[in-house]
Amino acid sequence: MNDFAVTERTRVKRIHERGHYDRETVHAVLDAGMICHMGFAVDGSPFVVPTAYWREDDTVYVHGSSASRTLRSLRGGIEVCIAVTHLDGLVLARSGFHHSINYRSVMIFGTAELVEDADEKMAALKAFMDRITPGRWDEVRPPDDQEFKATMVLRVPLEEVSAKVRIGPPIDDDEDYALPCWAGVVPLGIAIGDPIPDPKLADGIPVPDYATNFKLG
Amino acid sequence: MNDFAVTERTRVKRIHERGHYDRETVHAVLDAGMICHMGFAVDGSPFVVPTAYWREDDTVYVHGSSASRTLRSLRGGIEVCIAVTHLDGLVLARSGFHHSINYRSVMIFGTAELVEDADEKMAALKAFMDRITPGRWDEVRPPDDQEFKATMVLRVPLEEVSAKVRIGPPIDDDEDYALPCWAGVVPLGIAIGDPIPDPKLADGIPVPDYATNFKLG
Repeated sequence: MNDFAVTERTRVKRIHERGHYDRETVHAVLDAGMICHMGFAVDGSPFVVPTAYWREDDTVYVHGSSASRTLRSLRGGIEVCIAVTHLDGLVLARSGFHHSINYRSVMIFGTAELVEDADEKMAALKAFMDRITPGRWDEVRPPDDQEFKATMVLRVPLEEVSAKVRIGPPIDDDEDYALPCWAGVVPLGIAIGDPIPDPKLADGIPVPDYATNFKLG
Repeated sequence: MNDFAVTERTRVKRIHERGHYDRETVHAVLDAGMICHMGFAVDGSPFVVPTAYWREDDTVYVHGSSASRTLRSLRGGIEVCIAVTHLDGLVLARSGFHHSINYRSVMIFGTAELVEDADEKMAALKAFMDRITPGRWDEVRPPDDQEFKATMVLRVPLEEVSAKVRIGPPIDDDEDYALPCWAGVVPLGIAIGDPIPDPKLADGIPVPDYATNFKLG
């Protein structure tokens, strides 16, 4: 797989060795999450909205209510910046200055386009559920006409995109290694709990494997 | 504590019962995290940047490198939107349409201002470290002049802000409760691992309690 072209906006300038432009890294960071932060401007005001997303090949999809102010703003095809961030650890150095965070992040610049074709839209919604909870689409009631209309799906092509990753221990100034101060990493990640059945769940319905063994990515 | 005034931008319109404007809720959601997504426009392009933040009373601080394109853009006092989001669970309903996410989020609109006073800036940096790892400020080497200048601290007042929270089981359409489909919540949260000492750590330095028992909020 070839790399994404680097642009002025996606080039990681500070600590440039943290920047990655290869599809494998970008796709892996995106596939490890499910909530992005999407930024755009409405009447000159910046808005940042957390929203569910998923990836298919080199396209990122988001969805939401057709009644949502956010998505209504975007349906005309306006420019967005989408950030996906995974917090991997707290990096405790021997100087205040060199404290850091271990993370994997992706930043996407592009134009959000409304998915208007009904087949593509339904396929995208199915793909989203299949990615999060494989097999569940065939178990639940599918959207009726009214629900389908009330759901808006937008696509943003992965074209102008980069990943940024920090891993590993703190990097201290040489003369600070002698300080009598603990240094290292406190690992952080996503905790997944045991499924909590709906209090209204009928008897005799087993917990599906995708809920018991839920994972992201 | 009185509530934040509701504005056109902060009023939660869809599913308005999820909106909260009281200081207690807004502060609690902010204090449960440490990475926000900050959005702003540069030359008309939206940018969304993940960055560390902390709260003191009704002020949110962010910090970063003085060399950072992001913070340089903001130092002139431009408008930002800051989102903080905690993912609490995956809500599996009996219809595709009623699937949801349990979450706590805050959205702040305001102008980011550079903290120029050296005492205020140093106090803010200390407060940040004290909040994340209480007591560590006195153990590490404090910033020297060059590091202090290389660090930029910005403040955003909590004025135009709201929280949005979803908790609890799925809410299905009445006729769907009879479907033979599992429904409930897969809880999600932040996993905190055992501290990993720096491979270069000198012998005999114990792991501090704030690392062994790290918590957020």
